Amino acid sequence: MLEKINHIGVAVRSLDEAIPFYQDILGMAFKGVEEVAEQKVRVAFFQVGESKIELLEPTGDDSPLAGFLAKNGPGIHHVAYEVADIEAAIGKLVTDGARMIDTVPRNGAHGARIAFIHPKSSNGVLTELCQMDH
Amino acid sequence: MLEKINHIGVAVRSLDEAIPFYQDILGMAFKGVEEVAEQKVRVAFFQVGESKIELLEPTGDDSPLAGFLAKNGPGIHHVAYEVADIEAAIGKLVTDGARMIDTVPRNGAHGARIAFIHPKSSNGVLTELCQMDH
Repeated sequence: MLEKINHIGVAVRSLDEAIPFYQDILGMAFKGVEEVAEQKVRVAFFQVGESKIELLEPTGDDSPLAGFLAKNGPGIHHVAYEVADIEAAIGKLVTDGARMIDTVPRNGAHGARIAFIHPKSSNGVLTELCQMDH
Repeated sequence: MLEKINHIGVAVRSLDEAIPFYQDILGMAFKGVEEVAEQKVRVAFFQVGESKIELLEPTGDDSPLAGFLAKNGPGIHHVAYEVADIEAAIGKLVTDGARMIDTVPRNGAHGARIAFIHPKSSNGVLTELCQMDH
């Protein structure tokens, strides 16, 4: 069902402070910044192998990500796996008894359609499924 | 410098409780269990695309991972990037001013040679470099 790790989402307080570590120290390919208004985040993208690292900065104190940062500090926020058919993947998970945050896909960055599995079903790891618009 | 995400390390209290989510619900390919005595963990491996998910269970209360679980609960523990030449990679990082936990590689699972970057240098993300024994 899962094709690959599409991305790892990393919560940061400031893109400007975090980008140099990935771009200059680790030498990852920087792919640009996009604002995802629905999630109230700005996202910086880096490519590594077949996957991306997405640095996530809250755009306001009312961003869900601001709450995560206040509680946990900066760090890995979620992991996203790519699927070919997100409706089929959600259907299989629900049938198998997984608890979903999203039973209907919503819009993510880069035109993706995404759905989160509830961390109660995934041993504390916020887990996203995403179908890319190829 | 980085070839791909080699693995994501996930801290769990019990492999037996966590394996079914990855194997049965997500349908990842289960690659076996290995004990890494040096780290006092048992590791369950799953393949997804070119990367692995490694579930990490402490083998005793004196395991560093037991401390992580007591503080944070289950969740993503670290991300590991594969490099071709770990000594060269460490040398570059130190030259660029990154703080390393390991300036000399040590032994990881599957015969890998590994080194951790200090989270102070990586925006709170425990980051591992690993060179595989191909």
